[in-house]
Amino acid sequence: MKATMAFYSAYLLCLVLSVVCVVLVVHWNASFRGGFAWDHQAKQFNWHPVLMVVGLVVLYGNAAVVYRIPLTWGQNKKPWKLLHAGLLLLSLLFAVLGLCAVFDFHNANNTPNLYSLHSWVGIVTTILFATQWAAGFGAFLLPCSPVALRVLVKPAHVWMGATILVLSVVSCISGINEKLFFVLKKTTNETRPYAELPPEAVLANSLGVVIVAFALVVLKILANQTWQRPEPRSEEGEYRPLRSDDS
Amino acid sequence: MKATMAFYSAYLLCLVLSVVCVVLVVHWNASFRGGFAWDHQAKQFNWHPVLMVVGLVVLYGNAAVVYRIPLTWGQNKKPWKLLHAGLLLLSLLFAVLGLCAVFDFHNANNTPNLYSLHSWVGIVTTILFATQWAAGFGAFLLPCSPVALRVLVKPAHVWMGATILVLSVVSCISGINEKLFFVLKKTTNETRPYAELPPEAVLANSLGVVIVAFALVVLKILANQTWQRPEPRSEEGEYRPLRSDDS
Repeated sequence: MKATMAFYSAYLLCLVLSVVCVVLVVHWNASFRGGFAWDHQAKQFNWHPVLMVVGLVVLYGNAAVVYRIPLTWGQNKKPWKLLHAGLLLLSLLFAVLGLCAVFDFHNANNTPNLYSLHSWVGIVTTILFATQWAAGFGAFLLPCSPVALRVLVKPAHVWMGATILVLSVVSCISGINEKLFFVLKKTTNETRPYAELPPEAVLANSLGVVIVAFALVVLKILANQTWQRPEPRSEEGEYRPLRSDDS
Repeated sequence: MKATMAFYSAYLLCLVLSVVCVVLVVHWNASFRGGFAWDHQAKQFNWHPVLMVVGLVVLYGNAAVVYRIPLTWGQNKKPWKLLHAGLLLLSLLFAVLGLCAVFDFHNANNTPNLYSLHSWVGIVTTILFATQWAAGFGAFLLPCSPVALRVLVKPAHVWMGATILVLSVVSCISGINEKLFFVLKKTTNETRPYAELPPEAVLANSLGVVIVAFALVVLKILANQTWQRPEPRSEEGEYRPLRSDDS
């Protein structure tokens, strides 16, 4: 009972930070960066931070913790597997669209792609995520995948899932930092430079802090062994998924 | 035996990546950024990336994994505790000196401190690290600290240790990215802009990639339960440090 209360406190924090992330990243780009369009100009770029934060951080993190909700433990696992995979597919779609927004903007403005460290880490994160989704689909959702494969793949799947979230955070923080140096350069009628911490800088820096806090809460939920969904185990205590588990 | 071989493979990788990190960050600042001095100018700033990467990443990561070395398990834990705490104190000293380098440089050049997201994450990381070191010293090294306190604090100490490493990586990657945008602006006799990926950009981006790889190897070593130093346990299987354990 105490463990359940502790879980739901952490989960509530996770949900609140999710909402704050989305509000801050949308507000930043809608109110300070001129809003959204798909016109190969700055307003198209603005989709990039929104889609990456909502996709690679918020949707991704929430998808990662669905199995930890004790309310679901007494139920058939299959619908929760589908929710996990579905949320992650949506997250991947957002990330790919977010990359399209920036590549398209760069290409239209003759700016090279993939030169900054931010872009190197970001593209590796997205490729790893796509690979992880495909491998997870093959191993855990295809009915023909053998139980032995699931047992073998699960620890690597869990580990890689957490790693990708860490890489997403590294990408987001370096990207927000870079963007603020790009756009808050000199004192103009509209803004003061980054070094003077105008309202936009405080807002976007705070977004960065909330992203880090959200990811740490998700990683804490994932790491807590008492919050893991009870799985059928062999007599030796090894994890042994059953066919009935996938029905 | 197989687990030991796997550990030493991961540990060897950790050591190799440590050396590569140090070589790359020193080479970057010595060969491309003009070297080192304590003169309130650019050469003083160059100490900042070197001290932060060597301190907060390389020394820190290596200090985190000392208990995992199977060779030490048959031995008294005390010398390894002192090595763990000593390496981390050195790491903290490097980080504080690295901060002094950049604060001093900023102050001498009338540049504000602590405005970028990089600096916000970086300063929080260092404060958490200093707090963690002090709390760890109080709980695990002071002979008067009660066993019950050690049992209570250990999981939080381990968790916070990994969290600080993640935050260090976030700080380093955003800092390297920011620095390259600052210094590789236009085509000059000495360099081409960041977007054209001159040799310095490739070198420093690679440093970023190696830092991420190093941290992931360290986190993987920390997360692997079969690589944890066997501790005396109560009949209920709970961790129970003994006084003899601290001798």
